[in-house]
Amino acid sequence: MNQKKTNLLRERLLHGYNQELDYGGVSGERIADRLNEIATIGRTEDGGANRPGYSKEEVAAQNKVAMWMKNAGLEVKEDGAGNLIGRLEGKEATRPAIMSGSHVDSVPNGGHFDGVLGVIAALEVVEAWNTIGYQPTKPFEVVVFADEEGARFNGGLNGSEAMIGNFNMEEKKQLVDKEGYSFEEVLKQVQLSVEGYQNAKRDMNEIELFVEVHIEQGKQLEKEGLPCGVVTGIAGPCWLELTFLGEAGHAGNTPMKDRKDALVAASEFIYQVNKLPKEMNDTAVATIGKQLVEPNGVNVIPGKVTLYVDIRDIYQNTRDVLVDNVLNLAEAIADKHHLMFNYVEKTRVKPVPIMSDKQELLAETIEEMDMKPYKLPSGAGHDAMIIGEKVPVAMLFVQSKNGISHNPLEWSDLSDCVQTIHVLKNFVEKIQ
Amino acid sequence: MNQKKTNLLRERLLHGYNQELDYGGVSGERIADRLNEIATIGRTEDGGANRPGYSKEEVAAQNKVAMWMKNAGLEVKEDGAGNLIGRLEGKEATRPAIMSGSHVDSVPNGGHFDGVLGVIAALEVVEAWNTIGYQPTKPFEVVVFADEEGARFNGGLNGSEAMIGNFNMEEKKQLVDKEGYSFEEVLKQVQLSVEGYQNAKRDMNEIELFVEVHIEQGKQLEKEGLPCGVVTGIAGPCWLELTFLGEAGHAGNTPMKDRKDALVAASEFIYQVNKLPKEMNDTAVATIGKQLVEPNGVNVIPGKVTLYVDIRDIYQNTRDVLVDNVLNLAEAIADKHHLMFNYVEKTRVKPVPIMSDKQELLAETIEEMDMKPYKLPSGAGHDAMIIGEKVPVAMLFVQSKNGISHNPLEWSDLSDCVQTIHVLKNFVEKIQ
Repeated sequence: MNQKKTNLLRERLLHGYNQELDYGGVSGERIADRLNEIATIGRTEDGGANRPGYSKEEVAAQNKVAMWMKNAGLEVKEDGAGNLIGRLEGKEATRPAIMSGSHVDSVPNGGHFDGVLGVIAALEVVEAWNTIGYQPTKPFEVVVFADEEGARFNGGLNGSEAMIGNFNMEEKKQLVDKEGYSFEEVLKQVQLSVEGYQNAKRDMNEIELFVEVHIEQGKQLEKEGLPCGVVTGIAGPCWLELTFLGEAGHAGNTPMKDRKDALVAASEFIYQVNKLPKEMNDTAVATIGKQLVEPNGVNVIPGKVTLYVDIRDIYQNTRDVLVDNVLNLAEAIADKHHLMFNYVEKTRVKPVPIMSDKQELLAETIEEMDMKPYKLPSGAGHDAMIIGEKVPVAMLFVQSKNGISHNPLEWSDLSDCVQTIHVLKNFVEKIQ
Repeated sequence: MNQKKTNLLRERLLHGYNQELDYGGVSGERIADRLNEIATIGRTEDGGANRPGYSKEEVAAQNKVAMWMKNAGLEVKEDGAGNLIGRLEGKEATRPAIMSGSHVDSVPNGGHFDGVLGVIAALEVVEAWNTIGYQPTKPFEVVVFADEEGARFNGGLNGSEAMIGNFNMEEKKQLVDKEGYSFEEVLKQVQLSVEGYQNAKRDMNEIELFVEVHIEQGKQLEKEGLPCGVVTGIAGPCWLELTFLGEAGHAGNTPMKDRKDALVAASEFIYQVNKLPKEMNDTAVATIGKQLVEPNGVNVIPGKVTLYVDIRDIYQNTRDVLVDNVLNLAEAIADKHHLMFNYVEKTRVKPVPIMSDKQELLAETIEEMDMKPYKLPSGAGHDAMIIGEKVPVAMLFVQSKNGISHNPLEWSDLSDCVQTIHVLKNFVEKIQ
């Protein structure tokens, strides 16, 4: 660990921070310290974060948060799926709780705000209350969901799915990570178990509302010059694993006309898929982020290409039409190239609408703080998307710089983070 | 070694063999026996061949051939680069020799015909002459070149390069195999040395012509229904390593219009490159066999794609124009997508023409045997490509089944092999 390099994040955050935002018990310096401390865990050579779900790095980050929770007087527990929960009793302890938080795992070589900021924001509300001597009427829970990003098994949200009890255990048991470990073995590596995972299901009547603070991971708030925005809906992703099967052959002795090159077909597909979302609307997106070529030798015609298409929209109907269009395109291109084609739908999550009364209350809170209430969709999936299947959810986005995320260059200004935390705190106080 | 499994190759070869092809001293059974015996050395679990250059398996196969050479009355020697040469004196011993042969090393899990057939074919000509009591006027040499495939160092033809003395010793000294052994250390493992390698250079005036029998590794002869074909030229490969640099980003929260997706650009490039060779001629080929996507996460827009283009033609001018066209295309597509692009030329080998008088003489020989003389280019590199830099060369291709090569399923019918050996024998007798 290069301590000097590490402290750079704290210094960069505090540089230019507007000290006037330190009021009502909220401390910009504490937030910078905590973002910095989590960033030291799994730090990559590029200065990014590497904390895959169910890894020792994720556990170390959770342990750090658990310590902060205890010091803030929260009752801390971990469920069987590796979700960490810190509970502050309300004046009326039997009322359903307001829950807030996010996750501390990361994509490979990711950034230091995605997920972590949402956890630290929820915890900062408790710290602020402790400072000003406020106790909420309803219980307040700070939650850290396990394995949101899915870096281990190409399918995240494992923590929040376990909490609502909506998953297919047989499918999860068949998951295998890059190193060949099964879901069960990976859970064991972090002292969890399949039995514990299955028992993590919670009575969601105990929760009144889940509100998540998260970086935008887009450029809209930056364009508008706003610290934060109100999320109108969460786009549900559909992930397709597609395989084009051609015929491997010698790159020198197979004339162009006799080839069944799986990569040429896959490339035509990728090139065309990129044009499909804008035929639907402005919120739909389709991405091929992962592709495997076999046998992947310089002088061998590719016989097999496996690729993954990530398709999203905040509207279920247009998202599903786009999925159909992508599959039809794949079939047409495979036919054109005389290749075999097959696919597996790895996941299809319903887009989650955010109820307009929650949007309005957040917007009102923002207006009262003399900021413009700006509404925008979330293209990314979040734990709120899963929790939203069972209880009402709300989301606040913090401005991202250049829209960069899942990357060491991911950045949000501390002043924007703190403004958003004030909105979160005021909003939670409003709904007591 | 599973003896039963091993004999299967011999049995499969002899099954359906046309016994009428056993004339003029040529024996189909001896050829089947010998292909079978070499196949037992380095046999893989898949039934393939694993005899990397400069391995104990290659040496064992060469020792087997050396024994056959001695028994056939050849004067046997090995040069400092590990090339094995068996010489039959001609009636006029001072005349330059006719040389024929190939190699016995293989790619990892390769087939049993690539290289080996060319060695056994040249040796069979001597066996046939011994049987019918024929002595050529000119000396005849059977050669086994070392390390043609380059499985050890990703760059083959080390034996033939040493023989003509055209290599860069400093570059070779920097080669390191997968296990971390240097070129020098690998040579030592098979009782060779860098000094010996450098001294293997031969006075190529001692050779009048090199003629190589090799499997086609393509499907043209099978389509034509012909046992063998006359090679018109050997395509020289040019290998380019190209990198498209875009911007990684979140697959959900980056609207389509704000992306710099390196894989979309690379895919458009691959799709378009596939159309370029046919604009040149029928012999040019271009292949992207290897591609690396970074960071290669399902929900991350690819920020970087590295790919390798293998470009070949038997004509240097068209091959070089095609290389330029590929690079211009890459630049135009990078510009269109607002990405950075760079490239490294990894290798560029001159195509080797085969003189038309040699082609005609081979064609005439084939016609005299009542077969259709079919001409085709060699897209793959061979030892004849290197030897062709110094002396005239000729090549005969034997029909491959399904064009499969560098694979345990590689196959040529014994009748086709024997027909081709007759052509070789008659051709060599013609040029005395």
